[in-house]
Amino acid sequence: MAVLLSLLNFKDAEAQKKEKPNVIIIYTDDQGTLDLGCYGAKDLATPNIDRIARDGIRFTQGYVAASLCAPSRASLLTGKTPLDAGVDGNVSSMEGHAGMPASEYTMAEMMRDVGYATGHVGKWHLGYTKETMPNGQGFDYSFGHMGGCIDNYSHFFYWSGPNRHDLWRNGKEVFYDGQFFGDLMVDEVNNFVKQNRKKPFFMYWAINMPHYPYQPTEKWRKHYKDMPMPRRDYAAFVSTLDERIGKVLDYLEKAGLRENTIVIFQSDHGHSAEVRAFNGGGWSGPYRGAKTSLFEGGIRVPTIISWPAKLAKGETRDQMTVNTDWMPTLASLCDIDLPEAGRVGKDISPVLFDKTAQSPHDRFHWELGAQWAVREGDWKLVGNPKDPTAPESLDEEKDRLFLVNLADDISEKKNLASARPDIVGRLKKVHLELGVAKDMPDAKVREPKKHLAYSVPVESATPPSRKYAGMSGKWTLTDGILAFPNTGDKAWQGYEASDLEATFDLGEIKKVDEMRIGFLADYEQWVFPPKSVQVEISEDGKSYKTFGKTLKTDTEAPRSIKRVNIPLKGKARYMRIRIESQKLCPKWHKGSGNPAWMFVDEIELE
Amino acid sequence: MAVLLSLLNFKDAEAQKKEKPNVIIIYTDDQGTLDLGCYGAKDLATPNIDRIARDGIRFTQGYVAASLCAPSRASLLTGKTPLDAGVDGNVSSMEGHAGMPASEYTMAEMMRDVGYATGHVGKWHLGYTKETMPNGQGFDYSFGHMGGCIDNYSHFFYWSGPNRHDLWRNGKEVFYDGQFFGDLMVDEVNNFVKQNRKKPFFMYWAINMPHYPYQPTEKWRKHYKDMPMPRRDYAAFVSTLDERIGKVLDYLEKAGLRENTIVIFQSDHGHSAEVRAFNGGGWSGPYRGAKTSLFEGGIRVPTIISWPAKLAKGETRDQMTVNTDWMPTLASLCDIDLPEAGRVGKDISPVLFDKTAQSPHDRFHWELGAQWAVREGDWKLVGNPKDPTAPESLDEEKDRLFLVNLADDISEKKNLASARPDIVGRLKKVHLELGVAKDMPDAKVREPKKHLAYSVPVESATPPSRKYAGMSGKWTLTDGILAFPNTGDKAWQGYEASDLEATFDLGEIKKVDEMRIGFLADYEQWVFPPKSVQVEISEDGKSYKTFGKTLKTDTEAPRSIKRVNIPLKGKARYMRIRIESQKLCPKWHKGSGNPAWMFVDEIELE
Repeated sequence: MAVLLSLLNFKDAEAQKKEKPNVIIIYTDDQGTLDLGCYGAKDLATPNIDRIARDGIRFTQGYVAASLCAPSRASLLTGKTPLDAGVDGNVSSMEGHAGMPASEYTMAEMMRDVGYATGHVGKWHLGYTKETMPNGQGFDYSFGHMGGCIDNYSHFFYWSGPNRHDLWRNGKEVFYDGQFFGDLMVDEVNNFVKQNRKKPFFMYWAINMPHYPYQPTEKWRKHYKDMPMPRRDYAAFVSTLDERIGKVLDYLEKAGLRENTIVIFQSDHGHSAEVRAFNGGGWSGPYRGAKTSLFEGGIRVPTIISWPAKLAKGETRDQMTVNTDWMPTLASLCDIDLPEAGRVGKDISPVLFDKTAQSPHDRFHWELGAQWAVREGDWKLVGNPKDPTAPESLDEEKDRLFLVNLADDISEKKNLASARPDIVGRLKKVHLELGVAKDMPDAKVREPKKHLAYSVPVESATPPSRKYAGMSGKWTLTDGILAFPNTGDKAWQGYEASDLEATFDLGEIKKVDEMRIGFLADYEQWVFPPKSVQVEISEDGKSYKTFGKTLKTDTEAPRSIKRVNIPLKGKARYMRIRIESQKLCPKWHKGSGNPAWMFVDEIELE
Repeated sequence: MAVLLSLLNFKDAEAQKKEKPNVIIIYTDDQGTLDLGCYGAKDLATPNIDRIARDGIRFTQGYVAASLCAPSRASLLTGKTPLDAGVDGNVSSMEGHAGMPASEYTMAEMMRDVGYATGHVGKWHLGYTKETMPNGQGFDYSFGHMGGCIDNYSHFFYWSGPNRHDLWRNGKEVFYDGQFFGDLMVDEVNNFVKQNRKKPFFMYWAINMPHYPYQPTEKWRKHYKDMPMPRRDYAAFVSTLDERIGKVLDYLEKAGLRENTIVIFQSDHGHSAEVRAFNGGGWSGPYRGAKTSLFEGGIRVPTIISWPAKLAKGETRDQMTVNTDWMPTLASLCDIDLPEAGRVGKDISPVLFDKTAQSPHDRFHWELGAQWAVREGDWKLVGNPKDPTAPESLDEEKDRLFLVNLADDISEKKNLASARPDIVGRLKKVHLELGVAKDMPDAKVREPKKHLAYSVPVESATPPSRKYAGMSGKWTLTDGILAFPNTGDKAWQGYEASDLEATFDLGEIKKVDEMRIGFLADYEQWVFPPKSVQVEISEDGKSYKTFGKTLKTDTEAPRSIKRVNIPLKGKARYMRIRIESQKLCPKWHKGSGNPAWMFVDEIELE
């Protein structure tokens, strides 16, 4: 209250004389596709976010580039795909672990470079080292938690690891025991506005709600008390956050700053269907999927921008836009010169000023874990789709490629992949062209198998490709980890149109019975077993005995692991391996004549 | 303060005229063996608990009957072994799940039956159904949380399941958002005392500290700021709880009730070495082990009783006592007629009144999961010992029976089992006599069943998990040892979200009538029987006949062994088995969508 009173003193010309508009991006957490009154929710009280829509422009096809927290935030702040921004999944929530590389040029840096005061309040989840925390990424000021979620009263991060406190101001741990984080954030945002009213300011307010734990205030708990769980607590938490946004909007109005402040509202992705969130609570209406899914329910989110001084009020836009667009769009609106630098985000300001303008996106490509998606016009192809709200509704084999036309099937119910191989082919080509990791890692934790060659150091080896499958380019063939039959598994080591030669030293002479090597066959992904495998063993490193096998390409199991056994029955210390790849896709294959992949794992020695 | 002032009015004869003493049991959570000033800790400020010791008698050999929360509490409240009280491990922290059977006669019921007002404040963790919550177990009044731990400001329970609020008064959920649970408990205890000062009262104050999350107050955080983690937060949390005990002691004194109030202080077991607790923080001095271990560091705990009106002050006792003794001892001190009913607890009041009296225990028997222990005089034998602070210090085979003489080796360092088979035999006999599950932990006690596949070597098999319980990762499905219906039994072979495939060779062609395979169902522990079982048999290793069964998940016996019989009626030498796991927990289960376990044993062939 004291703050409000003192504010009235400067509600004046001072605030208006700045040239550039202020910017506040409100980025909520796990808020479902349609979970706002202005998006059609009949059971939610969200008067304040609805007020932003009334004062601005609401998008019906607003997307995020990832349906997971950290990658979504990375893409928002860089305008790049999450993978291009170096964030291929959730980063660690533990202190000392890096996240998005500090070398990324962020929206905050862009704003700061032209004189904006830059502030972050709320969740970060993009790195927990000095360099990758907010002050290292362009924010002058930061207050909030570094991990993926917190208890709103103790500000502790809970998971299976240490139960630890996680609240920071400019890199220094601060304690506000028992104080509601929602209210602390309001104070922080308003204070930042107050402090920086004389120069243009940029505030990234990453509200950690309605992400679990669902902790609404007493007022909203009572308001929704007759609703069934888990919608009850979720809804009350949405209204709790809405009310707090109202307190910031009120403050801007009272300070006379609202007119020239661009307020952007967006959710980081669809609602959570996790067990920690009682398996749900959010609502995506006709849209399939939720958080983690690349169906619409995971990536299509409430998206609003308002700028009373310059933009239309109470309008909607049906053009496609993505969270990556905010950075170039803000550059345009704030008259900042932003050089192109590998960003997929586009300036959507033409659409803002002209409702008939075309979306700058004729297509978009998503990639998250093993999932990927391409939308081109109304066609959308999802690879390895996930639907966390109904995992059993997808057939792992038949639906591995899932094609729909959104104009006919907004709920992405009917897979047209087999009916329209032409469209599948076209969109898949886009994926192969735009995808960085194409397919992705399988995070399952495996116990290393401690065979004779386990952890043996490699003396020399053909370097593996880094092009496919989130591949690290590291040698993983003697790490004891057996790969799964899935190109996304990092345990595979990939070679494109290249043979593999390696030599290693067992350290001492050992009795060796057999060598076993695994190869992936995944013809759909242009991955083929080798032509031949040859092993030479030696006790002294001088005279070698040679063993080998030639393979036939078996077309019967188009997605499987082929293991090649080579009996050795001898003694060895030094070993040379030569694996001859197919190099080109075979004649019968649709990729005939194009480079073929070879995926290898593991070289087991018994 | 208002409460204190109004209290002074009744500090008078009224309180004194009651005949029976009041009783307050303070039971702390995960507080280490020696983590008190009066037990030798040099780095801790614990003036208030030390004050209880100064006003009473401190035990140097005070034990609890289990080194885990729920079983320890069950034994305290019933005077029985945890297994006799129906609590063989931690009960569920989720609403709707029963815990200690309501049929158990508790200390609270004993006190209430003779006219005491009975109250519970703090942690419960003995059941989360109407019948098994405190009001169903003899408490007139209850305030606290039902699960294993809470955030002290939001009162949420965090684990892998739903993040949920857990604070209850007499079975009704209550909200005190942001208020420190330590202070709420002090108000509740003092209020209970105030309300019930006219009749004798019994208060079970189960303080949820210093169990993680470590959430000390600002005052104590500052006090210990220069100490290294995790001792720093742990120590600050111990002082935080100590200070709150002081507020209750002060209140009793000011109300004139201290003289005739028996105050018992004890920890539920040793300190935690869990990851959630930063792997430690507590201190057990020379004692080996921690929470979950049956070495002294897990079960020997601070144990103090004071009754200024009747007992000696500032004395110590070296006689052995166990938390199960409090119920019969209080019966004696409060002059209550308590019939014998299968309790192992003994009246230790003779020891309280005469420091030369003998301990009523010439021996004691512990049992927790796969572990068990017998102490007889100074000899102590631990079966399947665990040392969570140094798991690799124990050899799984050689130390399966661990014998020490505590008089010579208080740190339980040197295993005398092979040197003293005579003592081992004697103490093992005690275990076989007193153990409820007897067999359960010690697989070798069971005679192998010599069926047709007994000890047949396995050619290939999906490697079992080593993640669960004391699983060895070894193949135990043809060792003839039949598992007991308990996840802690090492005879089970566990698979997480994985099928089991195995092939073996009977060595010669045999007539086979039937195959029988056992599966554990323990839904509470996320363990489910498989979807299907398939067996192929062959005489020549080339042509195979296939047999199989598909199973329905039966929700009626949530903890039992399901045996699947597959008639074969044929001849076989080579066999292939394929068991298809559920992989994910079913929809109706709280773990829906998360990895499910499959526990298998034994593959019997007749």
